[in-house]
Amino acid sequence: MKVVLAEHYGFCFGVKRAIEIAESSKNASTIGPLIHNNKEISRLKKDYNVETLNNIDDIKSIKKAIIRTHGIPKNDLKFLKKNGIDIVDATCPFVTKPQQICEKMSDEGYDIVIFGDKDHPEVKGVKSYAKKGVSVVLHVDELENKIFSNKIAVVSQTTRKIDEFMKIVNYLITNHKEVRVFNTICNATFENQDAARNLAKKSDIMIIIGGKNSSNTKQLYNISKEFCEDSYLIESENELEKEWFKNKINCGVTAGASTPNWIIENIIGKIKEI
Amino acid sequence: MKVVLAEHYGFCFGVKRAIEIAESSKNASTIGPLIHNNKEISRLKKDYNVETLNNIDDIKSIKKAIIRTHGIPKNDLKFLKKNGIDIVDATCPFVTKPQQICEKMSDEGYDIVIFGDKDHPEVKGVKSYAKKGVSVVLHVDELENKIFSNKIAVVSQTTRKIDEFMKIVNYLITNHKEVRVFNTICNATFENQDAARNLAKKSDIMIIIGGKNSSNTKQLYNISKEFCEDSYLIESENELEKEWFKNKINCGVTAGASTPNWIIENIIGKIKEI
Repeated sequence: MKVVLAEHYGFCFGVKRAIEIAESSKNASTIGPLIHNNKEISRLKKDYNVETLNNIDDIKSIKKAIIRTHGIPKNDLKFLKKNGIDIVDATCPFVTKPQQICEKMSDEGYDIVIFGDKDHPEVKGVKSYAKKGVSVVLHVDELENKIFSNKIAVVSQTTRKIDEFMKIVNYLITNHKEVRVFNTICNATFENQDAARNLAKKSDIMIIIGGKNSSNTKQLYNISKEFCEDSYLIESENELEKEWFKNKINCGVTAGASTPNWIIENIIGKIKEI
Repeated sequence: MKVVLAEHYGFCFGVKRAIEIAESSKNASTIGPLIHNNKEISRLKKDYNVETLNNIDDIKSIKKAIIRTHGIPKNDLKFLKKNGIDIVDATCPFVTKPQQICEKMSDEGYDIVIFGDKDHPEVKGVKSYAKKGVSVVLHVDELENKIFSNKIAVVSQTTRKIDEFMKIVNYLITNHKEVRVFNTICNATFENQDAARNLAKKSDIMIIIGGKNSSNTKQLYNISKEFCEDSYLIESENELEKEWFKNKINCGVTAGASTPNWIIENIIGKIKEI
């Protein structure tokens, strides 16, 4: 069996940057998991004593807070400042952008539409920067009963698919006079997705590595599944099952934007053993 | 044979308004044809002595100028003012809007994309309000080799189809960070188009009445032709041919936005005679 890695995979710019920031902030605590990868978070705890606080109310015990790649809501940031906590901002610059857009457009009187998952931490953070009249949607039908002013600004969660974003945008433009569209989808996501698609077409089994709660990893899995029925999403080499690989000739491997290289290498080693 | 008029047809708000303005501006001259309908222009000349100047350099002979529904280029307006001509503005307010948008967005540093026909008087007028970096396109492939700044504003010629506008917009949004979309397509055009489509589906012959150089009339004809093979575009009852109506049961009639009711009534009368 031949094992081939996707042309683009794994850590994006924002995640690499956040890990470097965490590594140089020994003994600090992140507000929520720094990135969507439990194994990397354990490594940072072990090697750099970087803790993860799951509840912002627990900050009483800490001195230095690292803001995660996904950002945090505006009020949480205020709360940290009010409590005199040192802040190290590891928010991905591609996430800071839609936060700033939301704030500015809101100030200028635009209604805000965010294309994304309302429960995703990035979206919660971005949403918090809009003053009023903000809608978070994933599907066009969620827009149908909403009443907007004639000025609408639209941003996207950074890890969404452009085709789906365009459906939302098309609906808004067709029905409203002015729509200000900010394409805040991250190129790294595109690149990993395109590479996964190309590889899936040539593979008879695809292994997608990444956090099971990671939005971009799940999307890689969905894209892969479209072109290669035998696609599997795993977090570690222990989940690999021998029988998946029976009679397979070409095995493709890709990884979500929060997956460190050392995990990918472990898994490829194990596949080759099988 | 049954003759049925489309639910929406003929004169739009802007054209009705322009004719009223012309009727109350006796002895004035329009710069270019007031609307795209030669017969109505002859009527205005006969009943109100409203002349049509085809060349702006001929203004020496006039005192009062009527600006046509499509508007005129900014420099032509300046030229009229410089020559002390009284100006009566019959520009359709739905055309003034993209002119203003072009000017404002251009001032704010946006590159301007106009979706429309570069030779159409409305588009020439709108384009003249952009300072620099303005592209007029009808198809996505015309955008492919253009280099834009990261801030683009898009407007449409008022009489274009939304589906085609969206193709341009989708291309821009996919490839650029900020696209400010102004849907300047006029509802009257939509309404006439929807009604023509509905009627064509139920008809075995369609008569589309309007100027042969009128963009919106040609579009009504194209839409009609999609659903009813026997569609004919005519300007007057003299063009009707008996044999078109052989064995036909349902005849649909619609008219472009610059077609006066008296012409429509003449044609329906003639069809009923046949």
